[in-house]
Amino acid sequence: MVWCAARSVRPRIERGFRIGFLLGIDIGGSKVALAVGDPEGRVRARLRRATEPSGEAGADLDRIAADARRLLAEAGVASRELTAVGVSAPGPVDAERGELVHPPNLRGWGRVPLRAALQEALGAPVVIENDANAAALAEWRWGAGRGFDDLVYLTMSTGVGGGLIVGGRLCTGVGGNAGEIGHLPVEWNGEPCACGLRGCLEAYVGGAAWTRRLRRIAPEPGRVAELAGGRERATPRELVAAAREGDVFALAEMARWNEYLARALAAVVFVLAPQAVILGTIATAAGEELCLAPLRKLVAARVWPLLGERLAILPSGLGDALPDHAGIAVALHSRAGG
Amino acid sequence: MVWCAARSVRPRIERGFRIGFLLGIDIGGSKVALAVGDPEGRVRARLRRATEPSGEAGADLDRIAADARRLLAEAGVASRELTAVGVSAPGPVDAERGELVHPPNLRGWGRVPLRAALQEALGAPVVIENDANAAALAEWRWGAGRGFDDLVYLTMSTGVGGGLIVGGRLCTGVGGNAGEIGHLPVEWNGEPCACGLRGCLEAYVGGAAWTRRLRRIAPEPGRVAELAGGRERATPRELVAAAREGDVFALAEMARWNEYLARALAAVVFVLAPQAVILGTIATAAGEELCLAPLRKLVAARVWPLLGERLAILPSGLGDALPDHAGIAVALHSRAGG
Repeated sequence: MVWCAARSVRPRIERGFRIGFLLGIDIGGSKVALAVGDPEGRVRARLRRATEPSGEAGADLDRIAADARRLLAEAGVASRELTAVGVSAPGPVDAERGELVHPPNLRGWGRVPLRAALQEALGAPVVIENDANAAALAEWRWGAGRGFDDLVYLTMSTGVGGGLIVGGRLCTGVGGNAGEIGHLPVEWNGEPCACGLRGCLEAYVGGAAWTRRLRRIAPEPGRVAELAGGRERATPRELVAAAREGDVFALAEMARWNEYLARALAAVVFVLAPQAVILGTIATAAGEELCLAPLRKLVAARVWPLLGERLAILPSGLGDALPDHAGIAVALHSRAGG
Repeated sequence: MVWCAARSVRPRIERGFRIGFLLGIDIGGSKVALAVGDPEGRVRARLRRATEPSGEAGADLDRIAADARRLLAEAGVASRELTAVGVSAPGPVDAERGELVHPPNLRGWGRVPLRAALQEALGAPVVIENDANAAALAEWRWGAGRGFDDLVYLTMSTGVGGGLIVGGRLCTGVGGNAGEIGHLPVEWNGEPCACGLRGCLEAYVGGAAWTRRLRRIAPEPGRVAELAGGRERATPRELVAAAREGDVFALAEMARWNEYLARALAAVVFVLAPQAVILGTIATAAGEELCLAPLRKLVAARVWPLLGERLAILPSGLGDALPDHAGIAVALHSRAGG
């Protein structure tokens, strides 16, 4: 558990609301992050711990609520000063009902009425968004997306998720499913995807799919396998590390990775004409030389110059601080609109 | 020139504005349509004539302005009652500057400061949108898109254009280029497109590209060529007509047409998760049996059930009346927001 020092935080008036403090809760597959902040994104107190699902959602929610109350007390924020609670949770999320729907990474969580439970426990309005939408909001408010009112955020981890800001507002679409860019087709009738379709971006650049591929094709012994302690354990992280050392196999795999990502981004550009695409997780780890610079060239070759020249392809600006801001951004979004 | 009977029209208050009458101007490659209407989309008077570009944009604009003044006089709308003028024009449009940028179908029109010229001539605010955006607004307000706040409109004519309504607002993107769905990739490194890229949807289902293909591959003599009066003259309209008669070649071509359209729509669905896709022009002509029903099946096979089941794929609701409503919708959009 990590606490950060209290900083000067003041309330703000936005669209007629006086916004006091906001509580953000980021429920990840491995970690839960809670943070208390203000509408400017300044974090007053934060807490992180392992998720450790007990197998019973009710007990897990009780623990999160207890952590939240303790954090608010430590931050010196009274109940009446808490304007809203925002939750960033792994999809699928039913944002309208405020429920999680069988999140695959949270053992024992079925259909969980998270909003109702936390509202009762914390006495403030609770809003839920899936993690990609929450990250898009946070990057737009305080990260690499500041100043761009049309942007796409892509998280590239086990799966590939996306969040869209369109005209300065979160774009949710039917059932909150806008931005499922991981399932854009990048090969017609290509590799089977975990979602049941074929040729999805995620089947090529998602961490889980990539690890399966590595197990199948990585040379043994090779640098990727060596770094991972065996081919069976290889993940995109070791691939990036091996590519950074100049390993030829790893560099070829990175080129393939960038090519498929560019195909999906070209489609996104022709649909939305965004000002910025912001890449998180593995793309951030791979960095400028291995990912961003080659990706910019590949995308530019697949879109019109007038679109490519005005498109920024950027790494996440919040990086490791994202979990502290994601939930706060969701809470602010619900109060301030846009 | 066609005039329609005057109907009861009354002004409306929207978001604090009192909106009187709106003038819509639809500048097409072959026809110019002008219409005077109200915020409810009721048309009070309209006029259509051949575009007949003179080779000099200034003279053409003078003629449009003169037509507009005559139409307003016939409709009994005084200058102070005219709230706004909306123009639907073939892309590319620089909506911010109010300029057309070398529209390929208007001979002698270079970079045309259309907004400034018409504002001076008509004494009311003028707003310009490209024709696909204007059509999306009109279908959303008064056509097949009523009640859907997330929709995609596709016009399938010589080229393929698109307009997006996202969260109840027109989505414009960088330079007004959102919705260029005609250039979504449907084959990797496929057919060359007029835009300079390869494998774009438009290179497969755009009228001009399709006519080129027909000249190359259509059996001669075949039913399509027969209906067109020679293979050289064949267009998608004759293909649709031949398919309707059960011609085997034409049916196979329609199936190919639907397959490529479904690929592009699947990508759009994963980006935006819209409630509705509305198809105009050739798709409307091809109708339920040849286009819409098979297309729905093909799209459903390429997206998640939860997205496909909630997606309506519909023909244009305004049909031939679209040119009367497109400009009025642009004018209303500029006044009422959304």
